[in-house]
Amino acid sequence: MDKLDQPVVILVTPQMGENIGMAARAMLNCGLTRLRLVSPRDGWPSEPARNASSGAHEVIDGVEVFDTTADAIADLSFVYATSGRERDLVQRILTPRKAASEMRERIASGGNVGILFGGERAGLTNEDVSLSDTVIRVPLNPDFKSLNIAQAVLLVAYEWFTSDDETPVEVMEMNNSELATKEQLLNFMDHLERGIDAGGYIRNEDMRPTMIRNLRAIFQRANLTQQEVRSLHGVIKALQRLRGKPLGYVLKPEEIKDDD
Amino acid sequence: MDKLDQPVVILVTPQMGENIGMAARAMLNCGLTRLRLVSPRDGWPSEPARNASSGAHEVIDGVEVFDTTADAIADLSFVYATSGRERDLVQRILTPRKAASEMRERIASGGNVGILFGGERAGLTNEDVSLSDTVIRVPLNPDFKSLNIAQAVLLVAYEWFTSDDETPVEVMEMNNSELATKEQLLNFMDHLERGIDAGGYIRNEDMRPTMIRNLRAIFQRANLTQQEVRSLHGVIKALQRLRGKPLGYVLKPEEIKDDD
Repeated sequence: MDKLDQPVVILVTPQMGENIGMAARAMLNCGLTRLRLVSPRDGWPSEPARNASSGAHEVIDGVEVFDTTADAIADLSFVYATSGRERDLVQRILTPRKAASEMRERIASGGNVGILFGGERAGLTNEDVSLSDTVIRVPLNPDFKSLNIAQAVLLVAYEWFTSDDETPVEVMEMNNSELATKEQLLNFMDHLERGIDAGGYIRNEDMRPTMIRNLRAIFQRANLTQQEVRSLHGVIKALQRLRGKPLGYVLKPEEIKDDD
Repeated sequence: MDKLDQPVVILVTPQMGENIGMAARAMLNCGLTRLRLVSPRDGWPSEPARNASSGAHEVIDGVEVFDTTADAIADLSFVYATSGRERDLVQRILTPRKAASEMRERIASGGNVGILFGGERAGLTNEDVSLSDTVIRVPLNPDFKSLNIAQAVLLVAYEWFTSDDETPVEVMEMNNSELATKEQLLNFMDHLERGIDAGGYIRNEDMRPTMIRNLRAIFQRANLTQQEVRSLHGVIKALQRLRGKPLGYVLKPEEIKDDD
């Protein structure tokens, strides 16, 4: 992804290097690499930040530092401010999901977009928010809104990433196994039916169709692979090898033949 | 929300108390309060966990501890396992968003649902995953997938919370004009401030920051184009050219010079 095809994340007066590093890690997980800092308390570069980034050095190495929020946003055309609390300002407020799709539209039309996140002590000032076009407010438990800076970055970045992600919402991962064919499944059901007949499972012939259907539903629902069907054939054989033995008997190796 | 109206979060062999606390904090932000631990390395209760929870004591105080994953899920009817990596297992995989809506359906029909998260060292074992019905995989940057346990909990919990949240739709139409940059806007605000200072607009210096912010909010909200900013500079100049003239005076063309 071209660097200009993504929003800039701007941390305003962040304090702990660890949190800057965790924010960088959150960003890179979501494909974001443009990070700016406004007046970081402990200076820059920061070893704690690098360590906490868990290898997101691409982000850490590209950090740009500014003295003021105004300087940090000077080249941007649209700025979002993340804020959880009400303010005495007229503001347009979006959810992160809505903001993410809007950012994509703005960037697609050539906009240079940034997102402000406040530091640990007091978040963004009214001054910072008044420098922004739109507020992003993460929907959260109204009785407990307490995200730290890296968590806020993670949620907004995650919405950015998923707003253009084509991961199917549901897949069945087969790991090179193939689903059994219906013929294989029905052969197995025949094997099972012969086995339970021999064992006297069905005591009332009228109930046979229903009982067989109910058993079939179990294995149908399991979406068995070909290997799993082979395993189940083996299970039936193993259970049947015990015939004629007393309760609790365990077969000796030489008694096991695959001839059933 | 009734406790049974939400999924249980189960941290399997978590190590650092801080991460358990951060997970609890992430949960409560998203309205989740049922937390179980399987064999936490440093034991339980944990002061570091309580401190890192940032006041999510409701979650910390309700923690239940188990020896094994099987014990921790014994009373559940459907279990999700969060996992980022491929495994040699046939598994159904959902995005967190899809899983969240499915969980709501299962819970609405009386299901007791849980979500497994692996510890810091190695995530979930294949054994843990094979005890689960479905895998949740968070879509992330394929070149950098590195969420810690609390970050994974946050994203899944956030999807749970927002799956019952109504997002308003909003559109901004720009009509092919280019937005002004922040620098252009701030230059205009400086020009305006000098102008109103000369004109004695601010009579109480204490009020200056508020008054300037309120004025800025007007022009900020307007999403000005570059042309509009140029026009507004012209407006200020025009207003100032009247100085020294009597009330109601209108400048003659030859009196207009662009030299302010």
